[in-house]
This record gives sequence, C-alpha cells and structure tokens, in this order.
Amino acid sequence: MTKHFLPENPNNLVKNCLQGYAATNSHLSVLLNEKVLYNNQATSDRVTIISGGGSGHEPGWSGLVGNGMLTSCAQGEVFASPNFKNIQAAEKVVHSEKGTILIITNYTGDNLYFGMAQQELIARYGEDKVRLIRCSDDVAIKRSTNSLVGRRTLAGCGIVIKMVGSAALDTKYSLEELYQLGEKVNENIVSINAGLDHVHIPGHAADSNYGKLEPNEIEIGLGIHNEPGFKKIPEIPSNESLVTSLLEYLLNKNDEERNYLKYDNDDKFILLFNNLGGLPIIEEKALLFEAVKQLKATYGITPYRVVSGTFVTSLNAPIFTITLFNVTKSTSTVFTEEKIFELFDLPTNATNWPNYISSDLSDFESRVVTKFEHYDDLEITFDKDIKIDPQVLYNILETGAKNLIKFEPQITEWDTKMGDGDCGKMLELAANGTLLALSQGVSKDGSVLTCLTRILSVLANDMGGTLGAILYIFVKSFVNNLIKYAGTDSDAKVMAKSLTNGIETLKTFTKARIGHRTVMDVLIPFVESYAKDLDIEKAIQVAEDSAEGTRKLSPKLGRATYVGGLEDKKDFPPDPGAYGVYQIILALKHLNQ
Amino acid sequence: MTKHFLPENPNNLVKNCLQGYAATNSHLSVLLNEKVLYNNQATSDRVTIISGGGSGHEPGWSGLVGNGMLTSCAQGEVFASPNFKNIQAAEKVVHSEKGTILIITNYTGDNLYFGMAQQELIARYGEDKVRLIRCSDDVAIKRSTNSLVGRRTLAGCGIVIKMVGSAALDTKYSLEELYQLGEKVNENIVSINAGLDHVHIPGHAADSNYGKLEPNEIEIGLGIHNEPGFKKIPEIPSNESLVTSLLEYLLNKNDEERNYLKYDNDDKFILLFNNLGGLPIIEEKALLFEAVKQLKATYGITPYRVVSGTFVTSLNAPIFTITLFNVTKSTSTVFTEEKIFELFDLPTNATNWPNYISSDLSDFESRVVTKFEHYDDLEITFDKDIKIDPQVLYNILETGAKNLIKFEPQITEWDTKMGDGDCGKMLELAANGTLLALSQGVSKDGSVLTCLTRILSVLANDMGGTLGAILYIFVKSFVNNLIKYAGTDSDAKVMAKSLTNGIETLKTFTKARIGHRTVMDVLIPFVESYAKDLDIEKAIQVAEDSAEGTRKLSPKLGRATYVGGLEDKKDFPPDPGAYGVYQIILALKHLNQ
Repeated sequence: MTKHFLPENPNNLVKNCLQGYAATNSHLSVLLNEKVLYNNQATSDRVTIISGGGSGHEPGWSGLVGNGMLTSCAQGEVFASPNFKNIQAAEKVVHSEKGTILIITNYTGDNLYFGMAQQELIARYGEDKVRLIRCSDDVAIKRSTNSLVGRRTLAGCGIVIKMVGSAALDTKYSLEELYQLGEKVNENIVSINAGLDHVHIPGHAADSNYGKLEPNEIEIGLGIHNEPGFKKIPEIPSNESLVTSLLEYLLNKNDEERNYLKYDNDDKFILLFNNLGGLPIIEEKALLFEAVKQLKATYGITPYRVVSGTFVTSLNAPIFTITLFNVTKSTSTVFTEEKIFELFDLPTNATNWPNYISSDLSDFESRVVTKFEHYDDLEITFDKDIKIDPQVLYNILETGAKNLIKFEPQITEWDTKMGDGDCGKMLELAANGTLLALSQGVSKDGSVLTCLTRILSVLANDMGGTLGAILYIFVKSFVNNLIKYAGTDSDAKVMAKSLTNGIETLKTFTKARIGHRTVMDVLIPFVESYAKDLDIEKAIQVAEDSAEGTRKLSPKLGRATYVGGLEDKKDFPPDPGAYGVYQIILALKHLNQ
Repeated sequence: MTKHFLPENPNNLVKNCLQGYAATNSHLSVLLNEKVLYNNQATSDRVTIISGGGSGHEPGWSGLVGNGMLTSCAQGEVFASPNFKNIQAAEKVVHSEKGTILIITNYTGDNLYFGMAQQELIARYGEDKVRLIRCSDDVAIKRSTNSLVGRRTLAGCGIVIKMVGSAALDTKYSLEELYQLGEKVNENIVSINAGLDHVHIPGHAADSNYGKLEPNEIEIGLGIHNEPGFKKIPEIPSNESLVTSLLEYLLNKNDEERNYLKYDNDDKFILLFNNLGGLPIIEEKALLFEAVKQLKATYGITPYRVVSGTFVTSLNAPIFTITLFNVTKSTSTVFTEEKIFELFDLPTNATNWPNYISSDLSDFESRVVTKFEHYDDLEITFDKDIKIDPQVLYNILETGAKNLIKFEPQITEWDTKMGDGDCGKMLELAANGTLLALSQGVSKDGSVLTCLTRILSVLANDMGGTLGAILYIFVKSFVNNLIKYAGTDSDAKVMAKSLTNGIETLKTFTKARIGHRTVMDVLIPFVESYAKDLDIEKAIQVAEDSAEGTRKLSPKLGRATYVGGLEDKKDFPPDPGAYGVYQIILALKHLNQ
C-alpha cells in the first residue's frame, strides 16, 4: 500500500498529527513550529521525562505524553530525528529545577541530536541536572557484529518510559535514582520484530524500494524504519513455529550471540506485545496468545502482566514485536519488585498507554472454559397446548417433508439460476430432520407445540442459512405467541393471532415485503388470508397463487440481485424459498381431512 | 497485502484471538468452543449488555467487554455471524434476572442470528426481559435506496455500547429505560467511511477480488466487510478537501438523501474518529485534526469530547470513519445532557476503549502554541575564561575556515566516491559561518570561550548533518569542561583535560573508534597526543598522519559501508570528514607563532 491521506501541504502532516493528539486530550498542548507535544499539567516539582524521535512511530512518542509517562516529546519528520533546538524547546516548555531525563532511541540521528541537546542542557543547568537513557532492547543484532552500532530500540522503550515516568510522579526520588531505574529496566528488556513487509513513506515515489518482501516471504529482526532484518524465510511459518523461534532469540541462554537477557526460572516477567501498525488486531491477539502459551510450556514463564497494542509503530507495517521485561533482575535497594509492579500498574492519562487494569495470568487457564453447557433445547415447558388428531399431525409433517424432498431437484435448479444453489438441499435437510422426528414419535400425542419445538431445533441445527434463520424467527415467534395465548380463545383464533404476531416479528428482521421475490411473498399473504377468514383451504390457495406469482417478479434483495442481465427478462422460475414454503403449507390440507 | 499470521490450524484464529484478549485482562474469560468472551466480574443485579458479530472487526466486540461496556460478546468467524446457539451461550454465561439488551450491527446475518437468539430468550424469560438495539449510523446509503436494506452499522455502535453499558452499571435504570437510551443515542449518531483500499481475508486466495482500488483511487462510503462505497474518486484528494465532503454527507441539512442527523447549531456533540486498522496513526491523527478544524470553521461545532483510535476495524483496512453523536438531541426526562456526558466519561476496564480523560476543546486554540521563545543562544555566561592573543585567535579561525574552503572540491570528490557527497559543502558552510563571525569581531577580546560558543552556533545552525552533530557534541562538551575547569590549573592542562572529557562524551554517542574510517580517526589520536605531551606541534603531526592513514582503511560505519565492491580495494581516498577536521586542526599552528 503506497497510498496515504495527506494534508494539502504534506509538510503539515506531523504538525496536524500533534494537533490531533491535543484535540483528544485536554492535558496536551503543542508547540506548533517546534513539533513538540507536552503535558500542560506537568508540575515543576517533578523531574521531567522527555523523549521524541522521528514521526511515523505513533504512539511513540506523542501518544505517551501524560501524567506518569512523558512530560514532553520532540518530533521530527517521518523517520527523521528532531533537531536539537526543538529538543531543547521540549525541555524549556516543561522545565523543572529537579532536572531532566532524556529517554531516547538508539538510532544515529536521535543519538546525535539528543546528544547535542544534552550538552546544551548541561551547559545551562549543570551535569547533575541532565541524564540520558538510550533504549536498546533489540536482540536482532548479534553480539559479534554489534560492537559498532549497538542494539537498536524497539517497543521496549515504552516500558522504560512507563517505569521512569511513573516513578517521577513521586518527588522523593532523585534524578539519579530515576536514571538508575531507567538504566536497569532497559538492561532487562529484550525484544524482537517479525514482519510480512516493509512500509511506504508518505511523499516518496510509489515504486520506491523499501526492501519489499516476496508474496509469501517473512522477515525476522527488522527495525522500525524499513531496516532489513537478519533473516528471511521464503514461506510464512505458522504462528506456533514462528513464536517458537522468536522466543528462542529472546530467551535461549546458550545462544552466545543473543543471550542478552539474564534470567532465572522463577523471575517475574512482564510481556509486551507491540503491533507496528498494520497487523489486523485479530492476528495480533492470536500471536499474543501463542506467545503466552509457549512462554509457559517451554520456559515455565507466566508473565505477571501482559500488555498488547500499538506502542512503537512503523507507519502501518505488518510487523509485530515480542518484548520481555525481567522485573526481578531490575530491582535495587530503592526499587523493590513490588514497587516496580506498583509503578507499572499506575494509571496514566497518556493517550495510548493501554486501558490496563490487571492481567494476572495465574488463573488464566481457569478463565478459558472448554466445557460449557448450553441451554437445554427441551427445557421449555408450556402449561397449555394446542392439540389435534395425532394422525393428522403426522400426515401434515410427513407430507410437508416429502413434498420438499420431491421438489428438491426442481428447487435446486431454480436456485442455481437465480441464487447460490443451496436452497433445495437446505430444505431437504429440514425435511429429513422432520422425518427423523416423526419416526421417533414426536407427533404421537397430537401436541402442536411439541412438534413445532422439535421443528425449531431442526431449523436451527440442521438447516441453517438465511432461509433457515428466517423460518426459525417466524416459527419461534409463532410458538412464543401460541404459548402466551393458548386457551384464551378458540384454537383457530389463537393460531391466527400467533401467526400474525410471528409475521410482525419477522418483519423487524428483514425489510423484504410482498413483491420482493423472497419467502415473504408466500408467508405474508398466507398469514393475512388465514387471519382474515380462518379458512385454511382458502389460505393454501393464496399461498399457491403467491408462489407461482413470484415468476413475474425480478429480484430486489439477496444474492439474486447480483445476477446481471435480469433487467430485460420477464419470466423467471418461481422464487425457490417461496416455492419451498408453499410446499410445506400445502401439507396443511390434512387439517380438513 | 494478502499475507497473514495464522495458527497451524487456521480455524483457531478466532479462538486464539479471544484467548489473547483474556491474557491481557483478568476480568475477561472465554467460552472457547462457543467463541464467547465475557466479563467475569459482571454481577447479576445489572442488565446484561451483549453484542458480537463477525470477527476481524476487533476491538469490536471483544475489546469492548468490561465493566461499563459489554457484559459479553459472541464472535463468528472472520466477517461471518456467530450462530444463534453461541449468542445464547453469551447470554447464559452472564445471565441476569434483570434482563438482556442485545446491541447488534445491521447486517443480514447478525440480524437473523441475533433475532433467533432473541426469540429463544423471549421464550425462556418473557418479552419484558429482552431488548434488541440495531445500530444504524452509516449515512452512505441514500434515503431513496435504503428502504430494503436500512442503514448499516459503522463505528457509531461503540458509542451506543458505551452509553448503554455505562448506564447499566446503575441498577436504578430499568431494562426499558436502558433500551430507550440506546435507541435514542443510535438515532442521533451519523458516520461515514472513506478508504484507500479493500482488505484481504485470511484463508482466501491471494488474488481474490475484494474490490481493490486503482493505485491513486479513493472510495467513499465503504462498509466494514469490503462492501463497495457509493463513490470512487480517481485521485486521492487532500485531507482538507476530503474532510469537507465527508462532513457535508454527515451534516448538510439540505441533502434530502442523507440528512439523517437532526441538529441545531448550539447542540453539543461528541466526535469519534475510527481507524479501520490499516491507517498509520500519524495519518489518523492528522485527519482527526482536520475534522476538528472544519467542524468549527464550517459548522460552528466544537465537539465536547473527542475520541480517536480503533473501535470497529475491518482487519487492516486503510479506511477511517468520522462519527458524530448529537448529545443534546439524545436527552430525555431520564437522561439529561449532563448525565449523558457523565455516562460517556465513566472509566471502563474494557481493553480497547481509549484511556480517555477529557477532551474539552473550549481551550483548544490556546493549547496550540504558535509563538515560542527558544532558549537564547547567548544566554550562557562564564565567570572565568581562557584568553589568548586576539590576533592569534583570529589567525587560527581564519586559517581553519580558509583551509576548508580551499579543500572543499577535493573533499567533495572523495565523499562523492565513498559517501553521500555533502561533506565538503557542509564543512564549507561552517567555514563561511566562522568567517562571518570573525568579520563581526568575535575574536577581538581573545576569548576562546566566546569564539567556541559562536562556532557551536555555526555548527548547529549552519552546518547540520551527522558530522555537524558529532563536532557539536565534541566541542560543546569541551566548552562545558573548559567552563568547569578554567582557572583550576594551567591553561594547557585545562585544555588537555577538557579535550579528553569531550572525546569521552562523544564516545558515548558514537561507537566509531580508531580504524573505522571516520572523523574519530583524527580526533582521538590528536586529543590523546596533546593530553600526553601538551605539545600542539606534535599533536598536529599526529592528526596529519592519522588523516592520511585513513587511505588504508575500508569503511566500517555509515553510508560508505553500503558502497559495494570495496572488499578487494586497498587504496581509498582519505576519509573526507577526518581530512576536513585535520585541516581545522592544522590551523592551530598559529598558537606557536
């Protein structure tokens, strides 16, 4: 996807983005020309926490500005560092006598420009007022080759910012204590990216080569600015196999090249799962689950907290990050394990930190219910019933079912021309279910409600499809009304009233009416005729005329409307659903025998 | 992008996604086989609020389950409705005697299957215990053509769920009151989608036609399952022009086909901006800002709340929704305007409802600062200084500058071969800035600190680039140390100490060392030599040897490493940056004149 939504003047993209952030939260203000977003509720009795970097990584860093996270951030253009003057502006606008911690990404430009700003701030306020934490959680680059570039920054910087930002709310901690906390947290975070493709940068040529992958290729260890990873795999592996290898890169103690994380088996971890912007959330959460599952199964690690979402994106990259933070190894005399969790859990009004409450996984398995007892089909009882001669009831149901089986080839042929071809077979399934019920004696008491209840089960469980659902809603509402009104009037009048109410219910779920060439073309006139005259023979005749009448109707709804070239036609087959229902209604002739 | 991350058995995608949600929040439990996610903290004294639908719309609806939003949701496969048994399971697992409200999307399958479930629940618990709200916020479909299908559901359903879910926390409201609230809120919401492309559905063929758009085409009024919109535009308009037409569709009272929203000019609105999953967040927030701007400028509407993010996605579609909710027109005797805002603002632990605090826009303009006073360059003062003969100081700076200008063509030639070619011109810019400073009398007091301070300004403002930043950090740290140590020892020793500390600072920002063919090849040996012997002549000679020595070095860092075919080479030009800095150092010869 090389298309973008851009302002008239594309140079306003970053400025407009920052103003968008300010529009969503009262605590955010913008220095427009400096491309700085800051927390206007920040108080000068606290150490200021400042970050920033290239844009296109949102919510890094604008979405992390708020009480208990960043005090401000300085944003550059897309994938380009902010200049050192604007970084200083980010500090000046929230300046605190308690000092400043710059939390930065380990990329060349950010290093240099934040480095320049740091020297400026030292010149201005003294060495004891400025600290710089360089996040370096990526394990992609091997020990033997990273001496010149160092480890890069991935989504782990979100955790460093959360921890230092939370602690900075408490004025009892000194700048140095906060700095040491950040350094220790950073040391105990590892991350790795895996992705399906690179991204297009707004304003660049559509055919720019960003390291685009092959149609089924996947890359491991990518950066956040289209930097290549360390490995490509020609076929996308399953989540299971992919997560296995990613966790290896993060946790294999024997991998001399990448065992950056020190841990013991009973250490407490926080898992952060980052979507770099273009992964469907359904895939994000499914991958997250796989990571949780394998962490426990393979490493005996049950994370004490799990957060998932967007933290550091790369525009809309179909890439994700697995980040692990070893809380236990980050403790010190100042910050105990308990304190670190407390700081992590502290709510923040930063726009994009997850609405996180608790994710204690100790009871996770009990929260995944694999055996659930559905409502029992036969649980419904009725005090009164409508009964008819058991043989007549049997005959109606048998004839209706057999009519459907007999006309299945015809209905299928019509539906193949005008629909998706499954109508005949669906009705046949319902017919067979009904015959099975009859063979099990469903009609032996002559109970209309017993038979209809069983037919509902057949419609719901055997038939399916749109027609099954429509018939189900109609029959169910009919039955609900029969139960409600049984005994309040003559059976015929109760029938009529219930049929009418059934149709009215159905009308709230479909906009189809007479003339739209659907099953409603038979159901509505049939019910209206019976309700008016209580004459079943006459109503059956109306149903037949209506079913045949659908031959004159062009489709208005449903799949048949997609069939092209119908405009000039005058003669169609009958509507298959309408005709099928007519064949069921026809069986009601037995009532008058 | 037709690639996906899928489990070994792709049928587990939805189940794994739901378990991923459960892993992030303790209040969430899963009915695994039923694909139901529910709030295990729900209490039976409250009306249950249930939604669901096809998957692939996350956070709709799994991410909206929590206290004050959904009690549970039933999920179907991607873009397919849940079956009615699982919808009943979603009700059964959180069953409350107070009753249930089903909040559903207005798509055929959801209508029918939730309709079936509704009839089941009526049969079981009675008509007065079940209500169904069908969300219908889309304005894409014209009045004259929507009689058969009705208006579709877009992201507005998030607001309906938030409002009814919040109100349901208060047990004083009856089922009917909550239902009426939901209906009224739904009536007063309008939404429209605009998008750059359709999406690929996991498991479908890579070349499936989902209505893919042309390379520069945009579509207006799309659905959330690849349904076509009502209009395509061959060239992507600017955000300004696009937002203008989208707001027209939402708010033009004279558009008989789409003026679905009733409003007066002083009504209070909530604006929701929805990213359907594949829009870079930077573009999302920039579009949001444009909407906020034009709502005020064109319609005099200042939204009282603004929320933005993912609410109802379509996998990773590069589509967005603008949704407007008229709070004022949703009021009733039960729910006042104040109450509606209070309910909207109520915190929830639903995973994906934004970490929203307040977005009062009344002071928005004051939060966008367009005039900011940077730190003043000349603000820094120093009590002590290091002074030398003004003429010597002038000569050093002039010679250094002129050397750079003289060697610019040579340096540019070398850098064009081995780098990006701008090194010579960058150094020339710094040289010209220095000459300008000299012409303004910067050296007239013989103050080393005054001159260095001015040079820092030249490096930062005129030079730029990586080399500019590196020299700046080195010189700035050198100056910071000079200020700190001036007067504590002989000038030569203070110089030596400050140079050494400058190099040490610089080393924390670059991993380049001797032998890596960078400016460090000259800086490090020069400083080390001077620090050891305090002999400037000797140190200059070391710098010269080192600069020349870079001819023997192959690149290890920076852009030159990307130049292919260097492995076999033995002779290179000198490193341009190193050579340039040597030419500056050479000017220090004047110290011994």
